[in-house]
Amino acid sequence: MRRFYLPPADAVPGPGDAVELPPDESRHLVRVLRARRGDRLELTDGRGRVFAAVLAAADPRRAVARIEEVRADAAETAAPRLVLACGVVKGRRFERLLAQAVELGAHVVQPLLAARSEPDPGRGRRTRWEAAALGAMKQSGRAWLPEVAAPRAVADWLDGAVSSPGGARVFYGAARRRGETAGATLLSPAGLLAAAAAGDAGLFPPGADLAWAVGPEGGWDEAELARLAAAGRALRLGPHRLRTGTAAAAGLLLLAAGREALAAGKDLDGGGAPGA
Amino acid sequence: MRRFYLPPADAVPGPGDAVELPPDESRHLVRVLRARRGDRLELTDGRGRVFAAVLAAADPRRAVARIEEVRADAAETAAPRLVLACGVVKGRRFERLLAQAVELGAHVVQPLLAARSEPDPGRGRRTRWEAAALGAMKQSGRAWLPEVAAPRAVADWLDGAVSSPGGARVFYGAARRRGETAGATLLSPAGLLAAAAAGDAGLFPPGADLAWAVGPEGGWDEAELARLAAAGRALRLGPHRLRTGTAAAAGLLLLAAGREALAAGKDLDGGGAPGA
Repeated sequence: MRRFYLPPADAVPGPGDAVELPPDESRHLVRVLRARRGDRLELTDGRGRVFAAVLAAADPRRAVARIEEVRADAAETAAPRLVLACGVVKGRRFERLLAQAVELGAHVVQPLLAARSEPDPGRGRRTRWEAAALGAMKQSGRAWLPEVAAPRAVADWLDGAVSSPGGARVFYGAARRRGETAGATLLSPAGLLAAAAAGDAGLFPPGADLAWAVGPEGGWDEAELARLAAAGRALRLGPHRLRTGTAAAAGLLLLAAGREALAAGKDLDGGGAPGA
Repeated sequence: MRRFYLPPADAVPGPGDAVELPPDESRHLVRVLRARRGDRLELTDGRGRVFAAVLAAADPRRAVARIEEVRADAAETAAPRLVLACGVVKGRRFERLLAQAVELGAHVVQPLLAARSEPDPGRGRRTRWEAAALGAMKQSGRAWLPEVAAPRAVADWLDGAVSSPGGARVFYGAARRRGETAGATLLSPAGLLAAAAAGDAGLFPPGADLAWAVGPEGGWDEAELARLAAAGRALRLGPHRLRTGTAAAAGLLLLAAGREALAAGKDLDGGGAPGA
């Protein structure tokens, strides 16, 4: 069933309540999809709730739906949250990267103003980013609309991420340089997921967000790398150079898989479930 | 150091040999990067070899380099190969998907003509695909130019993949439907990588390629899904719907990580190295 966006209100609507859809969603539903009074639809508030509803007024400017049932999407609301912190890259690349991040389960996207990234993008571009996130939420059938935060400098974000309540476990990608011994300090994807399945509280502190930090196309500068090394854990994504968008998707996929392995391990009372 | 493409010849050049670069590479090297006689550069034949060389003639139409040293890139030439078999999608999306696949380590890209995919793209588009693969090889510092095979129907490709010498272990993405019990037949990413680290020969038959099959934007049809279920292993990439490009990148990353975990396990005499 198609899912539409109902922006969150002060009070969460319940069964029997009538809600008005935003103009964009109303037009899409009534003009494009030709929905009629009595048709069933699903709504989400982008905060983890899904509403089963029936169309009560097929108005293409402000459609009205009557809520029948409310449920929480456990895949969205369970801890930990997934954060993508990513150097801003040029043009539509950042929107595509952001859409992939939403598909892969990001709850927050933090654009970073790194030493080598694009300058602060301004309000117009940020509006396009928010639209890309909304489109990807609907496309991927999610019930969470990731917040696209205001761009911040790397040091500011790292300080906040580490010191905020609950904090964040920050991971970042690193290459093994030629001649270096394997695995001295770099986590492998297999190592990361094995630790998650075993419920390793050192690598995955309970209550902490999981954040994936990705540099801009030019890479991190030395000062940024030193800060990341001090605050985060280096993860090796493979032997080849990845562009920013690919690195963002790759790391998020692994943290999302780690999040699922942590949850599966908890379901089995801490025994770990690598085969689940 | 910048790396340039030297198409493979009948005989592999050795130290002391002079080689002529293709026109595109010559122009880029001499006109764009303003390289001069005596400058050092790296060449790759896209078949796993890397040549350290010195520019002997800075001709923008046919530059000549003298080979000093030849080495094999073990990350490229070791078994198993990574194959992406992917439903053709519209427009430039397929080129972007292909570039991400190259960055993530694919050795072969097999475009699939699925029931719901775009029609056979024709020669012009395939030329653009090959150019995208070459660009991504250079960008990612790889020494392997993935073959972009001629598009094939899903059944044809599957029959060939399973029956070819060495064969291929085919994986494909599947969702857990609501209400289904967890993990009955679906592999999780953590399960896949744990099996690789443990050297599970049932899941990773020695000598077999690792192939990741991804449907077109409309998904597989019932007959294709039945064939995949019979020939391959279903892998669960998470709770959300992924677009074709994201699913391609996600699965390839996991198979590449599995390939590294298999190799790390072998290095340790079969002991497995989830923390390496």
